[in-house]
Amino acid sequence: MNKRILLNCDMGESFGVWSMGDDAHAMPLVDQANLACGFHAADPLTMQRTVALAAQHGVAIGAHPAYPDLVGFGRRHMACSAEEVRAMVLYQIGALEAFCRAAGTQLAYVKPHGALYNDLVRNDALLAAVLQACAAFRPGLPLMVLALADNRREQRLAAAVGVPLLFEAFADRAYLADGQLAPRRLAAAVHHDPERILQQALAIARAEPFPDLDGAPLQLRADSLCVHGDNAESLAVLRRLRAMLDAA
Amino acid sequence: MNKRILLNCDMGESFGVWSMGDDAHAMPLVDQANLACGFHAADPLTMQRTVALAAQHGVAIGAHPAYPDLVGFGRRHMACSAEEVRAMVLYQIGALEAFCRAAGTQLAYVKPHGALYNDLVRNDALLAAVLQACAAFRPGLPLMVLALADNRREQRLAAAVGVPLLFEAFADRAYLADGQLAPRRLAAAVHHDPERILQQALAIARAEPFPDLDGAPLQLRADSLCVHGDNAESLAVLRRLRAMLDAA
Amino acid sequence: MNKRILLNCDMGESFGVWSMGDDAHAMPLVDQANLACGFHAADPLTMQRTVALAAQHGVAIGAHPAYPDLVGFGRRHMACSAEEVRAMVLYQIGALEAFCRAAGTQLAYVKPHGALYNDLVRNDALLAAVLQACAAFRPGLPLMVLALADNRREQRLAAAVGVPLLFEAFADRAYLADGQLAPRRLAAAVHHDPERILQQALAIARAEPFPDLDGAPLQLRADSLCVHGDNAESLAVLRRLRAMLDAA
Amino acid sequence: MNKRILLNCDMGESFGVWSMGDDAHAMPLVDQANLACGFHAADPLTMQRTVALAAQHGVAIGAHPAYPDLVGFGRRHMACSAEEVRAMVLYQIGALEAFCRAAGTQLAYVKPHGALYNDLVRNDALLAAVLQACAAFRPGLPLMVLALADNRREQRLAAAVGVPLLFEAFADRAYLADGQLAPRRLAAAVHHDPERILQQALAIARAEPFPDLDGAPLQLRADSLCVHGDNAESLAVLRRLRAMLDAA
Repeated sequence: MNKRILLNCDMGESFGVWSMGDDAHAMPLVDQANLACGFHAADPLTMQRTVALAAQHGVAIGAHPAYPDLVGFGRRHMACSAEEVRAMVLYQIGALEAFCRAAGTQLAYVKPHGALYNDLVRNDALLAAVLQACAAFRPGLPLMVLALADNRREQRLAAAVGVPLLFEAFADRAYLADGQLAPRRLAAAVHHDPERILQQALAIARAEPFPDLDGAPLQLRADSLCVHGDNAESLAVLRRLRAMLDAA
Repeated sequence: MNKRILLNCDMGESFGVWSMGDDAHAMPLVDQANLACGFHAADPLTMQRTVALAAQHGVAIGAHPAYPDLVGFGRRHMACSAEEVRAMVLYQIGALEAFCRAAGTQLAYVKPHGALYNDLVRNDALLAAVLQACAAFRPGLPLMVLALADNRREQRLAAAVGVPLLFEAFADRAYLADGQLAPRRLAAAVHHDPERILQQALAIARAEPFPDLDGAPLQLRADSLCVHGDNAESLAVLRRLRAMLDAA
Repeated sequence: MNKRILLNCDMGESFGVWSMGDDAHAMPLVDQANLACGFHAADPLTMQRTVALAAQHGVAIGAHPAYPDLVGFGRRHMACSAEEVRAMVLYQIGALEAFCRAAGTQLAYVKPHGALYNDLVRNDALLAAVLQACAAFRPGLPLMVLALADNRREQRLAAAVGVPLLFEAFADRAYLADGQLAPRRLAAAVHHDPERILQQALAIARAEPFPDLDGAPLQLRADSLCVHGDNAESLAVLRRLRAMLDAA
Repeated sequence: MNKRILLNCDMGESFGVWSMGDDAHAMPLVDQANLACGFHAADPLTMQRTVALAAQHGVAIGAHPAYPDLVGFGRRHMACSAEEVRAMVLYQIGALEAFCRAAGTQLAYVKPHGALYNDLVRNDALLAAVLQACAAFRPGLPLMVLALADNRREQRLAAAVGVPLLFEAFADRAYLADGQLAPRRLAAAVHHDPERILQQALAIARAEPFPDLDGAPLQLRADSLCVHGDNAESLAVLRRLRAMLDAA
């Protein structure tokens, strides 16, 4: 392992009286927390509390902007223009940064959520819009995107506006040959066996090949692994993963 | 006139396809623009455009945070806790600041909107919460409050967290003896005669006494006059006021 | 016991991906389900599913309209006009009735939620507005209100528009001498001892006196007891209460 | 002209303090008013007032349900499931019906709005979902859809759930050969010449052919013409159209 791989986790996804996740237990186990900004989840108080929790544990805070869709949790594609996406990402980044400032820290990166994240894979104009939002907000603010077998498209668009990229991979998802995530409608799209998850995590951490959906070897260069910690099972895997990476 | 009095105006209050105000004509005439932040009015694109317009005219940008009430335009009192108010103000300030950054400028001050503005007059905990939000967001970020005959309460609470205050007065509103605005339900609460408005503006600009609702002399120390520019009539008065102050 | 007392329970309070309550277990135990209508909780799919669940168990469906405040769960007072309240209650009643129709049933009553419920106690104009909404929606549609030592005010306003009233009481709340609920800020406001709750429930069911907050006897005439079933503890009490009333 | 063609118009599209359209002037000129239901426009008070205006002029009231997208005015496609669409249409229909009841009338038909309307053209599952919502709400409640050269698809799906269809055509839009509207990105997509609009209206009213985008003859069978009355120009055309149809 050249560089230590990081663990990132979606957090701060409660909304008003409705609770989600187990941030208190997951936070100490991760390096980067992707925090909802009020468009798909989170309200101002939830954001404030989750930022405080991240700051307390020295976890890097990432903005997790989304389409404006609370009922759909930001998972439903919306046909927004690039101009609208640039503005809605700026709005959400700024809102979260306010709580970072109040906690004596600052945003470390941006990782779009749900349908917006997925739309970036296919839509250059949207990816450019999100990159412009990052660049406009703060020079050097990184965008986290999906690690693919070939990320030259992302690198080219990011270089055009001088935005550093962070690449993330998934230990619990099956991959297609090009490094895209296998669609969730496929039976084998999500790994449930902890051993398999840990094995894939270790391979990615070491930048070694691991089997894709068809069993062919796939190699990804990733800076961070996206993990989950919202229930007892996923927390158990996360604890083993954390220990394994710390030992590596 | 010791110090030149400024003109501030609520702007950026369109929402989606719905237009409000005449920001394009009013912006060149004012010094400070109080911009809606999405809770009572404005969406991300509206904010981006209004910030750009203000920046283009060298107008200072103030955040105009409100209770979360689009249908009621932030004019309906909501029983929010001080903790909720602090967080919702931080959220809105931050969101607007993102567009300021993208336009190469930054927030100059904060002026709460509507029911939230009114609630600050009577509720120390809420005023302290808004002051804490300003202080937490950026040391030295001023809060704009109502100029009263006696502003020691506001000065005391602001000093406790080191927040500078800006005092605003109204040229088109009748005042009670203590400097509170006459309630709108009173027939004489709002001045409609342009001469009267200009006279009261000039008196306030010179820190000279002017007649309150009962005709008794009232003297206010104000940094800024709140003006309107959303229709032909109010724009006409605003143009005369601008000319008068520039000539003074 | 002259008339069998009913059990009513707030339900359908999930929102999008966020779950609340345990409607599947509580529904078979109650007679009346107060269903959120989208303003403080619930989305269209949640409403559809909860209406179907209630219909399946033969539970009477009540509309549970609220102030438009998802983040605050309708618990924050909002200074809405009587005209606004009448319209927002009609809107929510109508929306829920659509799902009742689709399930082959219809609304049985209306019970306002949270801050709106509380505001009706003190504000005649608001109570009249809610009563008008009921009357305008369907002649004979009952409104559920708080059973007090003296409900003549509610009866007078309801009679003026011909709306039947249902009176509800609480087995797990302490009462003031006039039948108002003891404010939640008081330590003894909520009963936690199951025996005490069951005792108070039985007294109310029999229209017998029970001790108020100060130990003085209070007698209430109630048609329905408001119960909770959102966790294991409250479900356990609810099961005993159901059994006790069925046996009575 | 076998049957008198009707005029329908989108109305009730104000939201809170934001005004849109000129319903007061347009209402007396139309036969059918498509009223926003709070998801893309309108709030409860706006709905109440517009229903009252329609009832006063004897105008048939149609529900105009949309995707939940106030900022985008329901014009942005959202990837909602058929189950979600069925439920959101039921919700909106029901909410509007409550105001109809309070005004002593009832919903006459349903016409989806914006992106939802457009999505029905290509997506059988969504069209079936909207038809099911109509059928579930009230047997015989008609759905208004786009008149095409061939509407057998719509007729087949509607017949399956027993929903009557109303076909609408546009006098001010250019058509493709199959009766689809020419995409707005095309320069000639919208007619601006009043004579051309009136001519096309008359042809549609008489079920006579009129030239499509390419000049080829197109014949549509329509029950209603969609008109606009939100500004002085469109009102002028609407007045001439009304007079022409009344004289025919």
